[in-house]
Amino acid sequence: MQIALDAMAGDHGSEELIAGALLATKQADLKVCLVGDETLLNKHLDKLAVSSDSAHLITIVHASQVIGMDEHPVDAIRKKKDSSVMVAFDLVRQGRADAVVSAGNSGATMAAGVRRLGRLNGILRPGIASAFPTQKKPVILMDIGANVDCRPQHLFQFAVMASAYSRILDISDPRVGLLSIGEETGKGNSLVKEVYPLLKNSALNFIGNVEGKDVFQGDVDVIVCDGFVGNICLKISEGLAEAAMQMLKDEIVKSLPAKLGYLLARSAFKAFKKRVDYAEYGGASLLGIDGTGLICHGNSSSHAIKNAIVGASKMVKLDINRDILQSLNREKDAAQVEVQPRKAGRVL
Amino acid sequence: MQIALDAMAGDHGSEELIAGALLATKQADLKVCLVGDETLLNKHLDKLAVSSDSAHLITIVHASQVIGMDEHPVDAIRKKKDSSVMVAFDLVRQGRADAVVSAGNSGATMAAGVRRLGRLNGILRPGIASAFPTQKKPVILMDIGANVDCRPQHLFQFAVMASAYSRILDISDPRVGLLSIGEETGKGNSLVKEVYPLLKNSALNFIGNVEGKDVFQGDVDVIVCDGFVGNICLKISEGLAEAAMQMLKDEIVKSLPAKLGYLLARSAFKAFKKRVDYAEYGGASLLGIDGTGLICHGNSSSHAIKNAIVGASKMVKLDINRDILQSLNREKDAAQVEVQPRKAGRVL
Repeated sequence: MQIALDAMAGDHGSEELIAGALLATKQADLKVCLVGDETLLNKHLDKLAVSSDSAHLITIVHASQVIGMDEHPVDAIRKKKDSSVMVAFDLVRQGRADAVVSAGNSGATMAAGVRRLGRLNGILRPGIASAFPTQKKPVILMDIGANVDCRPQHLFQFAVMASAYSRILDISDPRVGLLSIGEETGKGNSLVKEVYPLLKNSALNFIGNVEGKDVFQGDVDVIVCDGFVGNICLKISEGLAEAAMQMLKDEIVKSLPAKLGYLLARSAFKAFKKRVDYAEYGGASLLGIDGTGLICHGNSSSHAIKNAIVGASKMVKLDINRDILQSLNREKDAAQVEVQPRKAGRVL
Repeated sequence: MQIALDAMAGDHGSEELIAGALLATKQADLKVCLVGDETLLNKHLDKLAVSSDSAHLITIVHASQVIGMDEHPVDAIRKKKDSSVMVAFDLVRQGRADAVVSAGNSGATMAAGVRRLGRLNGILRPGIASAFPTQKKPVILMDIGANVDCRPQHLFQFAVMASAYSRILDISDPRVGLLSIGEETGKGNSLVKEVYPLLKNSALNFIGNVEGKDVFQGDVDVIVCDGFVGNICLKISEGLAEAAMQMLKDEIVKSLPAKLGYLLARSAFKAFKKRVDYAEYGGASLLGIDGTGLICHGNSSSHAIKNAIVGASKMVKLDINRDILQSLNREKDAAQVEVQPRKAGRVL
């Protein structure tokens, strides 16, 4: 299996990305194709003194352009057809790679995936799913930012896609919750109220509305919401986790016993940090495109990149897209959506 | 000044509420009127052996009904005209109390406030504002749950109301942010995109979009969003703070040095907990009604109730509603809203 890595994206530069690719090839039985400026990437590879054992597992495909983090996604992919992310998805379309991983502009990665590979048959809106750490197993939240204004059928399909995707966490018959502001039926905004009966009438394991406070309890496997709400949930959680650690440290440095205590408890703090570290969860997945793509945080470490590459290969092996299609066909009636013939690349 | 306390609401029963009232009368120059079942409340007062110094500061007004936490707000206030929360707002309408505090059904408290006191002149939708702890000063978020489907003018008015309300935290010229999923102009869902120019053209100190990760940084004083998003932010923050502490404790008990370390650092943990404890911030305020009302968490301790009572008296002293009206009049053009004559009690 070969994963195409957008080797020009990310806050830490190509070297960190290549280091992640090397880690991935060591851990799993796969190859990585680095996509980007050939001269630059070769220079980094030389510097990293890649052993001859690994050298044949890493290849380079040249791309002359890069999409910046602040560029408008759709404009950027139109103008920069030879950008690293577009070329990476080209490789998948040509059958030369099995999946794409990018730590770049997430909107552009989504747009490039849809443009180059098209939507899965019957999917109205591809979206982005991400795993959140909880007190028990991780929970999958979808959509976390691709679709800011949604219709009920979109959220229904997010539930179908994220349920199929949950196999990646070895979850079977995932419990699906609808993110709302009260657990009782009928609580929520007008969108949620319309989605509720669709999920209720489906073959999915729908457990009803869940609230913000339930997200981290671990008593639900899949949580569905629109991309505006999902992105705010993601960002507020990252922000709070960071702020809480900082505030706790502020208090700890105020007293000597507390400082000593912190030194003794440091291993626990580290273990806790690892447990809530998004890097451990290997990026967010594009679901609903006719192929496989993973988006990583811009500031991903080599470790996070490695996890994303391995995660992408697992998605391909498990054939998550086949599950999505099967489930979508089962649910046709519940969703009141006719499965339309696919129009590749015409969504955006 | 006299605050009417809904003495029948809350998870911990009337005794905890009365204890909060007693704390408040000791701390500040004010009286509290307990509203609820007279026999029951008298029994509790006797049990608490209230000293003769405080006795004249606490009075009781009888109400024969109670609205449960799970009752439908509007139905409940229609059916239960003699409920503790309705009678409490009656006291304000009759000039016998200056503000209401309730730890009961927040929807019913909002509905009772609007029904009994009406909206402030020109306000389209009253809402609920709450202070969040941050790394610096607290930030005020509005709306946190009263209005789940909003039009742009509603959010604009939330900004006006929450800015005026920020005086309670001694903030002048508050920086106002619009909660969205990207800082750049034009990022967000269709609602946010329509609200942006209204805020941009106003006399408010609008600093643009803010993201979920900015909420706890403390670099913005007021954050505006619809009540669906705001409630999810509130609940996800509470849930994460709780889950994070639990996960950290799980790690700490795994090793003896870490356990010892925790014992040494316990004071820091306590100080941290106090810093992020919502009880310290004295409840959430109903803004936009022609009077003053505060909603507390159902599981509020006597300490939280005391803070809410003192907070309500501060709102009255500062005459926050006068500021809201003045600001609203200044902003008439920006909001493109004609100030309509008030129709008391006709919103719900």
